[in-house]
Amino acid sequence: MGKKSHHATRPLSELLRVGPGPVRLADRDPAATPGFPGKGKDDADRFTGAAAVDLSDLQERLYANSKVDGPPAPSVLVVLQGMDTSGKGGVIRHAIGLVDPQGVQIKAFKVPTEEERAHHFLWRVRNALPRPGMIGIFDRSHYEDVLVGKVDQLAPPDEIAGRYGEINAFERELADSGTVVVKCMLHISADEQRRRLLERLDNPEKHWKYNPGDVDARLKWDAYQAAYEAALELCDAEPWHVVPSDHKWYRNWAVAELLREKLSAMGLDWPKGDFDAAVERARVEAS
Amino acid sequence: MGKKSHHATRPLSELLRVGPGPVRLADRDPAATPGFPGKGKDDADRFTGAAAVDLSDLQERLYANSKVDGPPAPSVLVVLQGMDTSGKGGVIRHAIGLVDPQGVQIKAFKVPTEEERAHHFLWRVRNALPRPGMIGIFDRSHYEDVLVGKVDQLAPPDEIAGRYGEINAFERELADSGTVVVKCMLHISADEQRRRLLERLDNPEKHWKYNPGDVDARLKWDAYQAAYEAALELCDAEPWHVVPSDHKWYRNWAVAELLREKLSAMGLDWPKGDFDAAVERARVEAS
Repeated sequence: MGKKSHHATRPLSELLRVGPGPVRLADRDPAATPGFPGKGKDDADRFTGAAAVDLSDLQERLYANSKVDGPPAPSVLVVLQGMDTSGKGGVIRHAIGLVDPQGVQIKAFKVPTEEERAHHFLWRVRNALPRPGMIGIFDRSHYEDVLVGKVDQLAPPDEIAGRYGEINAFERELADSGTVVVKCMLHISADEQRRRLLERLDNPEKHWKYNPGDVDARLKWDAYQAAYEAALELCDAEPWHVVPSDHKWYRNWAVAELLREKLSAMGLDWPKGDFDAAVERARVEAS
Repeated sequence: MGKKSHHATRPLSELLRVGPGPVRLADRDPAATPGFPGKGKDDADRFTGAAAVDLSDLQERLYANSKVDGPPAPSVLVVLQGMDTSGKGGVIRHAIGLVDPQGVQIKAFKVPTEEERAHHFLWRVRNALPRPGMIGIFDRSHYEDVLVGKVDQLAPPDEIAGRYGEINAFERELADSGTVVVKCMLHISADEQRRRLLERLDNPEKHWKYNPGDVDARLKWDAYQAAYEAALELCDAEPWHVVPSDHKWYRNWAVAELLREKLSAMGLDWPKGDFDAAVERARVEAS
């Protein structure tokens, strides 16, 4: 698949990628639209729809590779992190929803259960990894253990400090075993979060999405931003992408496009069948 | 939601429903299009797209009801059965793919593993039931145990004969615990199956979908049709729907529409939040 008009003007895997060195979220505009090839929401909806065709084809190739004998097929793991209302659910609905649901495994990580807390913090994450041929989606992830874990001091400081290295080792292990990791931090401004929380409160049909605990976290905004900066900087075994998310239309298009780029770079061919097509044709015709 | 132009001319839950008494699949035309309000493929694609809006709204209500405190929310279980190539996967992709993947749990039942065979045949099925608020999709199901199980005599005849009653008891139990069961048999003709198998063989990109074992099952076509007739007739605790599936466009529209009818009949309201919206508004504004 070559360059198409709904593709980014430059690859998002470069434009949104966090480089080496200190990360300052305040220097990244959450309302920016890097690489967007059009003018606004209408274009974005059109481009996202066009991307669905490419994404469907690529996802089906990935899946097909797991359906024939041979070495384990690769898989993809999309990690979605972001403050409340940044749109992790919206991305799953509008971007991930473009591909065949049979090829997608979604896992939302909540406050750990008692059983999960009794294990190493990566235990529940390993249990939720995508099978070969699948696109796994993590709505929150192992990064919670260096985000809320750090902000609310849910473990001793030295234990938390050790987790960055453990996460790097874990993600290297994933890459080595054929899982392409796509890490996205959905970056919104505090003002945009206020607007979205008020919008939920103002519409009784959206009350179920509102959680008073979101305001408790909001009151620790700066501590969370600092914890994100540490995670983005220290967990560099697999690249992070900061997706400006004040514009929902940009955010959805960007994650779909980033996924398309990553799948495309895997160079997946259709697998060959392990049967003689002429023999099978004769069998079917005779039946 | 009232009657819309993309809805069936008469409810599919009535038109496609298997009534009491003997079932003869030979009397049901697999190329028929009962209830379809248009003229063919182009209309169907348009209507299916329009149905996506209703389906999204209904699915979100179902899901929302599981996100607030209170008694367990209801769930939906769509059971898809049909001969090879009848389009179970196509329905999941094109009809179920219309709703938010976060609200869908898909389970494909394969040849039972050793562990599954060591348990009662319903064990693996119970393990895969949808959580409250979710739409579960069974690609094959407990019915395999009275279909391939019967045709290939995988258990003694009296054991198989007893399964119909066990399935009825199981499905009553599901209904009693708030799971709406939507059973669809995708009905194709032997000629259409031949065309689809040859199509897979003629296109190397589709070879991964071709399984020589499908021809082995095809050679037992009449035995399978008889086994389906027995299952449709004897397992009447929850209604069966026979979906004519020689036209893929009708099949996809019909399953989406049937699901819409069933969700709509649940009369789901948006759940109320368990917080004081004015207090929360003040907290957000002050933050």
